[in-house]
Amino acid sequence: MPSGQNQGRLTDMPLSLHHIVIDAHDLPSLARFWTDVLGWRILSEREREVVIGPDETAPVGICFMPVTDGKIVKNRLHLDLTSAAEDREAEIERVLALGARRADVGQSGEESWTVLVDPEGNEFCVVRPKATLIG
Amino acid sequence: MPSGQNQGRLTDMPLSLHHIVIDAHDLPSLARFWTDVLGWRILSEREREVVIGPDETAPVGICFMPVTDGKIVKNRLHLDLTSAAEDREAEIERVLALGARRADVGQSGEESWTVLVDPEGNEFCVVRPKATLIG
Repeated sequence: MPSGQNQGRLTDMPLSLHHIVIDAHDLPSLARFWTDVLGWRILSEREREVVIGPDETAPVGICFMPVTDGKIVKNRLHLDLTSAAEDREAEIERVLALGARRADVGQSGEESWTVLVDPEGNEFCVVRPKATLIG
Repeated sequence: MPSGQNQGRLTDMPLSLHHIVIDAHDLPSLARFWTDVLGWRILSEREREVVIGPDETAPVGICFMPVTDGKIVKNRLHLDLTSAAEDREAEIERVLALGARRADVGQSGEESWTVLVDPEGNEFCVVRPKATLIG
């Protein structure tokens, strides 16, 4: 498909994705976990809002905001991570050492992805590298 | 902070954010809603997986996957959208016309953001442009 296919169909200035917001109990700890997982940085840190991203110019970052509610069901939104590393298992071990845990969300175990949860129980997956997914 | 601050602290190939996965009942409809909201395109469409993004080369996209579970609590992850448009209210009206609804998640109404839900009830916010947020 030509990359400009949709041009002109929408308004000149559509909305753009800015932050993925994650409700958190311990903002600094959860932000630290995710910066370590992704190799990102803390971009701003306030009592009620911690923002992380690859750098200040990146279009999309993650923002942690405080909640008191506990997590009671599987999240309807989750993050899929991919790795350029050949040894995906080593990457998974690294993330487990950072505080992630393996999770059972009903997967068979035969999937091409691995389901983990962050220290506050938010599910995320480590999937095969993009090149494999496209093939 | 120097942008290379974290270099060397992590593994050479950390995981990278690939997809935001949204559990959905009607994948094609929800994917169409979000492409219209963001000015994105459908990148791949299968019965059990629809992927959208700005284009094939963008690092981050949204992937819709089927679930039968209904939504019962406020999502712990949500998306914050920003607009370059001066008239944020017009953008909100455009999104409402696409099938979004205004939502009450306990906000006071004095906030700088507007809380909406997509056609399947997933909360998202329209926030002030980035320049304002940084100031």
